[in-house]
Amino acid sequence: MPRYNPWFITPWSAPWADVSFGVQQSFIPTQMALIVHKYGGTSMGSTERIRNVARRVAKWARAGNQMVVVPSAMSGETNRLLGLAKEVSPAGSDPAMQRELDMLAATGEQVSVGLLALALQAEGVPAISFTGWQVPVRTNNAYTKARIESIDDQRVRAELDAGKVVIIAGFQGIDNDGHITTLGRGGSDTSAVAVAAALKAAECLIFTDVDGVYTTDPRVVPEARRLATVTFEEMLEMASMGSKILQIRSVEFAGKYQVPLRVLSSFTPWDIPLAQEAVSGTLITFEGDETMESAVVSGIAFNRDEAKISVLGVPDRPGIAYQILGAVADANIEVDVIIQNVSHDGKTDFSFTVHRNDYARTIDVLKAKVVPTLGTDRVEGDTRICKVSIVGIGMRSHVGIASKMFRALSEEGINIQMISTSEIKTSVVIDEKYMELAVRALHRAFDLDQPIG
Amino acid sequence: MPRYNPWFITPWSAPWADVSFGVQQSFIPTQMALIVHKYGGTSMGSTERIRNVARRVAKWARAGNQMVVVPSAMSGETNRLLGLAKEVSPAGSDPAMQRELDMLAATGEQVSVGLLALALQAEGVPAISFTGWQVPVRTNNAYTKARIESIDDQRVRAELDAGKVVIIAGFQGIDNDGHITTLGRGGSDTSAVAVAAALKAAECLIFTDVDGVYTTDPRVVPEARRLATVTFEEMLEMASMGSKILQIRSVEFAGKYQVPLRVLSSFTPWDIPLAQEAVSGTLITFEGDETMESAVVSGIAFNRDEAKISVLGVPDRPGIAYQILGAVADANIEVDVIIQNVSHDGKTDFSFTVHRNDYARTIDVLKAKVVPTLGTDRVEGDTRICKVSIVGIGMRSHVGIASKMFRALSEEGINIQMISTSEIKTSVVIDEKYMELAVRALHRAFDLDQPIG
Repeated sequence: MPRYNPWFITPWSAPWADVSFGVQQSFIPTQMALIVHKYGGTSMGSTERIRNVARRVAKWARAGNQMVVVPSAMSGETNRLLGLAKEVSPAGSDPAMQRELDMLAATGEQVSVGLLALALQAEGVPAISFTGWQVPVRTNNAYTKARIESIDDQRVRAELDAGKVVIIAGFQGIDNDGHITTLGRGGSDTSAVAVAAALKAAECLIFTDVDGVYTTDPRVVPEARRLATVTFEEMLEMASMGSKILQIRSVEFAGKYQVPLRVLSSFTPWDIPLAQEAVSGTLITFEGDETMESAVVSGIAFNRDEAKISVLGVPDRPGIAYQILGAVADANIEVDVIIQNVSHDGKTDFSFTVHRNDYARTIDVLKAKVVPTLGTDRVEGDTRICKVSIVGIGMRSHVGIASKMFRALSEEGINIQMISTSEIKTSVVIDEKYMELAVRALHRAFDLDQPIG
Repeated sequence: MPRYNPWFITPWSAPWADVSFGVQQSFIPTQMALIVHKYGGTSMGSTERIRNVARRVAKWARAGNQMVVVPSAMSGETNRLLGLAKEVSPAGSDPAMQRELDMLAATGEQVSVGLLALALQAEGVPAISFTGWQVPVRTNNAYTKARIESIDDQRVRAELDAGKVVIIAGFQGIDNDGHITTLGRGGSDTSAVAVAAALKAAECLIFTDVDGVYTTDPRVVPEARRLATVTFEEMLEMASMGSKILQIRSVEFAGKYQVPLRVLSSFTPWDIPLAQEAVSGTLITFEGDETMESAVVSGIAFNRDEAKISVLGVPDRPGIAYQILGAVADANIEVDVIIQNVSHDGKTDFSFTVHRNDYARTIDVLKAKVVPTLGTDRVEGDTRICKVSIVGIGMRSHVGIASKMFRALSEEGINIQMISTSEIKTSVVIDEKYMELAVRALHRAFDLDQPIG
């Protein structure tokens, strides 16, 4: 894995660590690195902000890095475009219609790349923009939610080698028949990571409106601490549970192709020293990296969007799980936690959680399709629940983590309704009203408010 | 030249001439024709208007025609995009910058084609949109003012043969290196005509905010009459003098490739009978077409944007014209009328007109670059002039047309300052204050207010 100048990431050991750089024009690293920056819609939200993005990218380029930038559409633009579509056409899932929505939506990022290239040129930095099809970023033909299949790096590399900053429209690609596709909401994260993987970039920096990944939501626990590093696996577990910092597919992608990913804020002043910026935010890293923190639990995730449903007294025979969940899946309802405990007296209880918005429909489906053939009519549910999870790569090699979690909850008098575990996560379903209390208790119990020794 | 069903254009001779059609679903022509529609920015100015465009196109498609539609960007959109560009970057002529402006501006038409395809689909008419590069429309690489070099008809034909309306983004193309280009303001007209030429369309209908080409500006002469037909040559002469209905390059293109072009209003109700719509507006046609009108003079054009400049007492020796106009051209100033009369006493007077905005600069250029080496310092000019022209293909074969013009002006006591003639046009430069008077007198003198016998 190529690394860009390591001085960037250990500035305290560098001789110039205390020097303030301003514009980095005079700072030439000894080793050139290829860096990908991704800027979200808020960061690109106005021409003034775009000029700040250009100044920040220029700072990195002048420091000697080869720069690729993947911006999102200006905030509000994608909604504006899809709003226009709604005014001329009713919603539908016809592929011919989805194709046109992609034709429309892809313009948002095309505007962004053009403006950012102009802003960089105005800063005196040679820059060129590319749409998805120009790179090309090849995808399948699943319009509005396409998946990237390959990225050709030839054209981008040629422009980088010619000394230009290359700006690539996020969120979009081209299918094998030459139609424009988009990757779905948040797809620009995935674009950036895929581009970084294709170019074997030293690091992919995701500039966003938060300054990193926290041990838990600071609005719930004021002592929540920003993590300097977090593993991909932990990030995946956290992302799927409401720490919506990155599109989850982009994290999977980064893990699969081993792209070092850093989440950092685009609202720090653009002219903070590069050496300082390069170590800010949270680096999403690989297990075994030396920089990894030693904490067993990295963060507390929580989610109050779910409802639990139980089917009680189910005859314990093969095919029961499929019989229940098959009907739910057929109704296009997504299921999160699934729990089935050992049976007694030939009967078992089967529980799962769905999104709260799907609760009533799920109950209807069960009553109409499942109960009549199942041998039980005891369907129960509760929408006033929440899910709280501890996440940590270290859980695999440490015993007693789950019981420490249960003790902390017990000490607060919180009753646990369901428990589900994976290798690096333990989740409990509890009464919604205890959510903040539980999160704070767990944050304290696992010393997440303490700086890493 | 293939013609679409002639019944369309002579409805009064058709057995169903009095029938009101409403939606033309039941009307299948005996001969299928390929028709190109072009809609300007005003016609595409809102989602409601786009839905009306879709309904109009659907009417033509349901009547059995193969339909290609070339829309402009929604009115105001191109200005909005270029306004954003101005906010991030100072103006400049650097090709790298022009390239990004094209990247940006091309999105306006991409939005239009996507929305129109959606609106047609919502009408139940299969439709697919293409950007310039998808067709592809190949151009040279003169960003922001590229010229079309070729259009590949294969992909469009395949979709037409599959029964779809094909919507092509106007104003844009792709150069040989895969960069997006645009054709300059009004370029969608040229796109439409070029597409019609490439597909050998039966007719290209330009829907705009006027209902045809008039004998002169109805705001000046209330009796001005809409021409049912006008020749390409006449249209060129009129377009270059202020009848700004069509981009002049599109008319040249149509003449060169013999594309029958019709200018008509997009503000008639979308559901007027197709047979009536198909003969409305003004058909721009070829000399010798049977439909040609017999009038000697077709229209009166005028223009008060110019200023005249004279260099008097110029030594009559070879190279004088180049010496004077070369310096003006070097300063990127466009010259319109140029007049040099026979010399007397070895001296001649040299006159020309420029745009009023260029007047002061032209005088400066002449004084700085020309006068010092010319042997005369008599440079005069006047910004308070106008140019009035009579245009007509019949002028070639009729004598006495110019003198009839001069007599009409003389009878109104209007002094003629300059005269310039071409095969199908005679222009005079007169005092600006007589412009309306002159136009009305000429309109009457050539019986333009009378219906064609």
